[in-house]
Amino acid sequence: MSPIIEIPHLEEIQLDRSRPLQQQLYRQLHQLILQGRLQPGFRLPSSRRLAKELGVSRNTITLVLDQLKQEGFLSSRMGSGCYVNRQLPQDCLGLEASVWDSSVRPPVLSRYAQGLEEHGMRAEDAQGAADLPFTVGLPDLTRFPASTWSRILKRHSDRTCLMGFDDPMGHQPLREALSHYLAASRGVRCQPQQVLITQGAQQALALCALVLLNPGEQVLVENPCYAGAREALLARGAQLEPLPMGPQGVDTTALPSHTQARLMYCTPTHQYPLGGILSAGQRLQLLDWAASKGLWIIEDDYDSEFHFHAKPIAALQGMAPHTPVIYMGSFSKTLLPASRLGYLVVPEALAATFAKAKRYLGGDIPMLLQAAAADFIAEGHFVRHLRRMRQCYQHKWDHLQALLEPLAGRVETLAESAGMHLVLQIDGVDDQALCQAFLRNGFGSTPLSSYYLQGTSPRHGLVLGFAHSNGAGREAVVRLLHRLLATEFAP
Amino acid sequence: MSPIIEIPHLEEIQLDRSRPLQQQLYRQLHQLILQGRLQPGFRLPSSRRLAKELGVSRNTITLVLDQLKQEGFLSSRMGSGCYVNRQLPQDCLGLEASVWDSSVRPPVLSRYAQGLEEHGMRAEDAQGAADLPFTVGLPDLTRFPASTWSRILKRHSDRTCLMGFDDPMGHQPLREALSHYLAASRGVRCQPQQVLITQGAQQALALCALVLLNPGEQVLVENPCYAGAREALLARGAQLEPLPMGPQGVDTTALPSHTQARLMYCTPTHQYPLGGILSAGQRLQLLDWAASKGLWIIEDDYDSEFHFHAKPIAALQGMAPHTPVIYMGSFSKTLLPASRLGYLVVPEALAATFAKAKRYLGGDIPMLLQAAAADFIAEGHFVRHLRRMRQCYQHKWDHLQALLEPLAGRVETLAESAGMHLVLQIDGVDDQALCQAFLRNGFGSTPLSSYYLQGTSPRHGLVLGFAHSNGAGREAVVRLLHRLLATEFAP
Repeated sequence: MSPIIEIPHLEEIQLDRSRPLQQQLYRQLHQLILQGRLQPGFRLPSSRRLAKELGVSRNTITLVLDQLKQEGFLSSRMGSGCYVNRQLPQDCLGLEASVWDSSVRPPVLSRYAQGLEEHGMRAEDAQGAADLPFTVGLPDLTRFPASTWSRILKRHSDRTCLMGFDDPMGHQPLREALSHYLAASRGVRCQPQQVLITQGAQQALALCALVLLNPGEQVLVENPCYAGAREALLARGAQLEPLPMGPQGVDTTALPSHTQARLMYCTPTHQYPLGGILSAGQRLQLLDWAASKGLWIIEDDYDSEFHFHAKPIAALQGMAPHTPVIYMGSFSKTLLPASRLGYLVVPEALAATFAKAKRYLGGDIPMLLQAAAADFIAEGHFVRHLRRMRQCYQHKWDHLQALLEPLAGRVETLAESAGMHLVLQIDGVDDQALCQAFLRNGFGSTPLSSYYLQGTSPRHGLVLGFAHSNGAGREAVVRLLHRLLATEFAP
Repeated sequence: MSPIIEIPHLEEIQLDRSRPLQQQLYRQLHQLILQGRLQPGFRLPSSRRLAKELGVSRNTITLVLDQLKQEGFLSSRMGSGCYVNRQLPQDCLGLEASVWDSSVRPPVLSRYAQGLEEHGMRAEDAQGAADLPFTVGLPDLTRFPASTWSRILKRHSDRTCLMGFDDPMGHQPLREALSHYLAASRGVRCQPQQVLITQGAQQALALCALVLLNPGEQVLVENPCYAGAREALLARGAQLEPLPMGPQGVDTTALPSHTQARLMYCTPTHQYPLGGILSAGQRLQLLDWAASKGLWIIEDDYDSEFHFHAKPIAALQGMAPHTPVIYMGSFSKTLLPASRLGYLVVPEALAATFAKAKRYLGGDIPMLLQAAAADFIAEGHFVRHLRRMRQCYQHKWDHLQALLEPLAGRVETLAESAGMHLVLQIDGVDDQALCQAFLRNGFGSTPLSSYYLQGTSPRHGLVLGFAHSNGAGREAVVRLLHRLLATEFAP
């Protein structure tokens, strides 16, 4: 028989009577055992005695002791009460005080994650959470038909068939609505069975990298380039090589005669962020070159809905029936960032493979939002909304351009970048610092140099997302820019 | 002056008058140029003449010609009409007929994607889309409080502040509600700033692989193992090594004295799919061993809410303040699969790095669903729902076990697998074929052998997800099993 030993640390148990007692008592006994202060073989007082000493109901004591028995910390012998389990590995007790203190370094991270840790929080990362005026990529949410959207959501929100598993490709009605929309408005050649719904454009990019690229292989990207694409490719271990660039985007007359790349990423309809547009002839040259080199093309058609002066040029993907093009887009700008709906159009023979890879990258996409987007398109709200927003953004763009005219000479506005953002080229300025100064004044922006690949010579300046600005905000941001360029950032 | 040449292929233009004409005419002229049948320098008839010949309004003709000019396919000279652009690269025309025919093979896919293509559509993949009875992982959706959920969704569905960008970690109210819930119910030590919201458990796994692992490195996994974890690790290029297994899960007395692995994945509270539970002592041994080898542990706590006979054992993560544990879970089983909400609890020092990596893997999670889940927890609906479902699933489990008793000897039910599924071990059966036979009869299931790593000796049998079955379904599935084992699958 073990001697009767009472809890030596009973007086250390501190219970806050304003909160549930069971959880507190469990946690504290558990810690006393783990720390080795209640040693294996120690016998606990009876539950009646414990209840009295601690001022807790016997029922609570019983529940806590049962939980600790269940977990193997305590054991009981018929008629002789409750002991700290002798089978607990001796060298693990006291663990909290020795092995697991904060001086022990955690295991290392992947090289990719170490890189993320090292390059700190860049200005563009810092803005992720903020819906500041002039944050790039944010549409004018005040003009979104929220009551229509809400009414459509309500229609679907208690449907049991939208609560379980989705089709691995995405919700069929949305894929149908999208394939009609993309064929009619963008000249994309697609059937619903080629359309995959993704978690925004970002997952579409990560998925392309996973399916089309082995770690360590080369990828050709525009320079400057969309940061989301660059980072998704780097996450896959890609070696990024800049494409030759001309005033309209990729310079199709200077494409290399030899390349080891397997993949190229481009924005032919509106170079991101500068705004160049490839003509039909340039598109044909690009396609022909890619085919001859055995390259995949990811065609990111991120804002063709907001071309102001003409219908946008038809997509590369649709120029012939069998192009090696993966077409991508998202609803973040055309609908809502928080819809988190993006899409890929892939050759039909590859659709099942993309769907499997998507399953393991993140799985299904919420069906409620897909069903709502499908109705929003099919009932004509989408096209009406786009028409209104095109006018709205053009008005804002005209206004911002006019306001910036007095700064000409120092600030060059790249008008073709219009859509939802405007690129201001400001030679010789430290644009990271300028962006920080904007942040301190309550304005978003992205440094133009941050879009360029490491080791290349960037242009400097600011990218301003004007889509959700108002008139007073545009006046204020130009005043601020004027003031900063005359003082802190004077040449 | 160029000679006046009329369109030689005018008669080939076929317009379907029941559909919008502009799009059709654009597409057909575009093709005639791309195919080289309207050659560079050819002059088109006047818009008046075209309108008359084709029976289309002059306005439509003008819009189409303007679009083709805009795209660089046509050019116009003052006073002499509209020509096919001489600047189109000659060798790209006729492209559709030559380079881009279907005999040209598309570029190759990544080795990972080729692997996905090759191992075909497995039974468990095929079930993804189907909500068949006994599909593993599907909760009882008919018992979900859909009207409460719908009411909460409505409350948030037109809030502008939920339409833009999310916090990179996830929606703050959900992270707060979760950190309270996980501390109280699972003994997890966490503050909201350690919680990341993910696109289901699957993205949580992909994110851990990206942040904790370099391609080509070893990972220790349970064997059998959750397929979603195995595939997410393989997508990252991991080499999978089986952990030694005992009746309660990982055999903590047989852990290797040397390992090159950087990471282990385990389900200590309910081994998936077999159901073993590691005791407190075993948990301490596992933690101590992992710390001594510099290993990360991914603790997947996928269904601890549905332990029937006792409160589940507290999480590995919370056994000491500084464990090298990444804790993960999801709302797919406890709430709805289509909520697509999962979560990670990471050491606070790593939270910013995980958030950045998440940004490039898929970006934000829909805020509407996060806000609804936060309210559902904070208002007590979640805990009430779990209590009801625990009783409901226990009843179904008892019933299914009773029905299977007559098959004892041939079919061993692994009772500890209870929760939402039951594992039936059936020695010597071809379980892939048995699963296919189930599918043909309208029942889901997963072959037990499919959970084992390649090259190891699997057990055979079926895993049945009973959570969304009804009484008649359970009787029918046992009758079917009985019949199949007596006929097609007789020993």
